Amino acid sequence: MERIHNFSAGPAILPQEVLEQARDELLNWQGCGMSVMEMSHRGKEFSGILNQAEADLRELMGIPANYKVLFLQGGATLQFAQIPLNLLGGGSADYVVTGSWSKKAYKEAQKIGTVRLAGSTEKSGFTRFPANAELDLDPNAAYLHVCTNETIHGVEVFDYAALPDSVPLVADMSSHILSCPVDVSRFALIYAGAQKNVGPAGLTIVIVRDDLLGRCAVSAPTLLDYAVQAEHGSMLNTPPTYAIYMAGLVFKWLKRQGGLVAVEQHNQAKADLLYRAIAASTLYRNPVELANRSRMNVPFTLTQAGLDETFIGEAKKRGIVQIKGHSSVGGMRASIYNAMPLEGVQALTAFMQDFEKAHV
Amino acid sequence: MERIHNFSAGPAILPQEVLEQARDELLNWQGCGMSVMEMSHRGKEFSGILNQAEADLRELMGIPANYKVLFLQGGATLQFAQIPLNLLGGGSADYVVTGSWSKKAYKEAQKIGTVRLAGSTEKSGFTRFPANAELDLDPNAAYLHVCTNETIHGVEVFDYAALPDSVPLVADMSSHILSCPVDVSRFALIYAGAQKNVGPAGLTIVIVRDDLLGRCAVSAPTLLDYAVQAEHGSMLNTPPTYAIYMAGLVFKWLKRQGGLVAVEQHNQAKADLLYRAIAASTLYRNPVELANRSRMNVPFTLTQAGLDETFIGEAKKRGIVQIKGHSSVGGMRASIYNAMPLEGVQALTAFMQDFEKAHV
Repeated sequence: MERIHNFSAGPAILPQEVLEQARDELLNWQGCGMSVMEMSHRGKEFSGILNQAEADLRELMGIPANYKVLFLQGGATLQFAQIPLNLLGGGSADYVVTGSWSKKAYKEAQKIGTVRLAGSTEKSGFTRFPANAELDLDPNAAYLHVCTNETIHGVEVFDYAALPDSVPLVADMSSHILSCPVDVSRFALIYAGAQKNVGPAGLTIVIVRDDLLGRCAVSAPTLLDYAVQAEHGSMLNTPPTYAIYMAGLVFKWLKRQGGLVAVEQHNQAKADLLYRAIAASTLYRNPVELANRSRMNVPFTLTQAGLDETFIGEAKKRGIVQIKGHSSVGGMRASIYNAMPLEGVQALTAFMQDFEKAHV
Repeated sequence: MERIHNFSAGPAILPQEVLEQARDELLNWQGCGMSVMEMSHRGKEFSGILNQAEADLRELMGIPANYKVLFLQGGATLQFAQIPLNLLGGGSADYVVTGSWSKKAYKEAQKIGTVRLAGSTEKSGFTRFPANAELDLDPNAAYLHVCTNETIHGVEVFDYAALPDSVPLVADMSSHILSCPVDVSRFALIYAGAQKNVGPAGLTIVIVRDDLLGRCAVSAPTLLDYAVQAEHGSMLNTPPTYAIYMAGLVFKWLKRQGGLVAVEQHNQAKADLLYRAIAASTLYRNPVELANRSRMNVPFTLTQAGLDETFIGEAKKRGIVQIKGHSSVGGMRASIYNAMPLEGVQALTAFMQDFEKAHV
C-alpha cells in the first residue's frame, strides 16, 4: 500500500522528503557510524544538529536576538502550567478563551496562581476570536494569554497587529506555527507542541523574550525554569534529541519551499480549495466566522444526520484517513498542515463532492 | 563507513536489528501508509503500539498487576521533582547519595519539600553503596530514594533484597533498567530515562505501585500527577509516540534475546571481560569496590598522566567512540548497555591492551 492522505490533527503528516532523509540516515548519520538516536547530546555531532535547528528556526521566523529559543518536553499541556510558574511573579494574568485549548490553558493556570478571564466566546460556540472592545483587560496583568489557532474549533487569528498590546502577550501557536510569517516582536512568549507543524511528538518549542526570564517560582521543578533552560541551551538534562533532529529536517524543508511567505501562499491555496468546496455544498458546513477560519484545521459537519460513519468509511477506501472530528465537537476535521500537499486536499474535495452526489 | 563501537553513556547504542526495523518501516508502518510519527495518538494503530509496549515491558520485568506503567517525558531530572510532588504528602523522605545522580535527586527534592540525607558515600569518592547499618533511616519517611546504578561513578546495587524495607523504596534505575531481572515488588516506584537501555531520549518510564497514587500536591502541574497520568493511560496529552514505538521494538528484541535472565548473562560476560582487562593492566584503574562495580557503566582512569587525549584519539581510529569519562570525574568511561555486542567490548579490550603495550 502506498502512503495515504493523512488529515490527523496531530501527531500529523510530515513531509515525505523529510521522512525519506530520516530513513536513509537512520543507522548512520552523515557517515559518523551512529544513528542520531545513539549520539551523546553533549557530543559535537548532536550539538551541531541542535545549533543548526535553532539557527534555521530563527531565520525562518525572523526571531530577534533578544529572544531565547528553547527545545523542551511535555507538550503545550505542560506549558499551561510552566508559563504561569515562570511569568506570574506573584501577580495576575489575563486569559482569552476561544476554544478547547485556551480553556485548558486557563484552567491549568488557575492551579498555579491568580488568573482572570479577559474574554470568552464559549457561549456562542467558539466560532470566532473576540474584538479588543469585548475584552475585559487588566492593565497590570503579568501577561495576556491567547491561542492563535484553536485546533479543535478551527478558529485562527490572522491580524496579530490588532491583538491587545497593553501587557506582555503570550501565544499558544501549537497548531499553526511556521504556517505563515509572524512578527515575533509582537509577542513576549510563543509556544508550540511540535507534533502538528514541526516534527514528532515529544518536543515543545518556546520562544521567549529574555527580559521575562529569571522570575520563576522558587518551588518549581528546576527543569521548568525557562531561565535555567536558557542558560543551559535546552540541555539541563538530555533533550529529546531525535525529535529535535526531525524538527531540524523540517526547518530545512521549509527553507527549500521558499520560507514562510511561500508556505503561507501554499496553505492559503489549500484552505481556499477546501472552504470553497464546503461553501458550494449543501451537505457540509463549517460554523466558524469568515474572519477566523483556520487554514490549518478545518472542522465541518454533515448537515444530514446518520452519515458520519459512512463518510469516514468511504473516505478510508479512497485513502483519506484521520478525518473524524474531535469527540468534543463531533463531525469531521481536516487538518491541512504545511506537509499536506495540494493533491491531498484535491483528493479530499473530490471525495466530498462524490459523496454528496451519492448520498444527498 | 560502517557502524562503530559506541560507548556513549546516553543517548546510547541501540540494537542494530531495532534500527533496521525502524528504518524499513519509517515511511509506512505495517502497510498502514503512515509513519509511526504521523499517527494520531488516539488512533487504533498507535494505541496498539502503546499497549503492546506496556504488555512486553510487564512481561520482561514481571511487573505485578497492582503497579501502573507510565510513559512520561522530562527524563529522570523531572522525576527528581515529580517524585516528591507525588509522594511526600506533607511528610519527609530519606535519600541515599551514592553518586552524581542521587545527589541531584536529593538536591532537587529539597526544592519541593522536606527531605533528609539518610547516607552518603561522597567523602570516600562515591565508590560503593553503603550497608544498611551505615544509614540513618527515618522509620516514618514517606519513602527512601536510592539510585541503583550511578551512571557517572559506575556504582551498581546487585542485592536488592538487602536494601532497607522499612518504608516505600523509590529507585532511579535509569542506566541499568532491563539489564537483569528485578523483583519489582521490592519497590514502591521505579523510574528510568529511556535513553540508556530502552530507546531514544525524550521518554521516561515510571513503574509505580497503585496505592501510592492520588496524593499529589494540588498546586503541581496536572501533567506531573501520576494518578492523572495513570487514569489517562499516559495520554493526558500527546505522549512521545515515536520514542514509545522505539522502546517497544527494544522490548521485542529483549524478548528475542531470551528475556532478562539471558540478557543478564550476556551483560555479565561483557563486564567480566572489561574488568578483567582493567585488573590485568598497570595502566588502567577502576576505583569502585568489587561488590558494586557496575555492569553497565565502567569508568576507568589512566594511571599515567597526560595520555587521555592520545587514548581517545587512537581509540577513535579503531572505531571506538564516546569513551571519554564525565567531566566531573575525568578519565574514561565505557558504557556497555544491553545493545552493546560482545564484539564491541572485545574490540575495546584489544585496543586497551595494544595501547598499553605501545605507551607504557
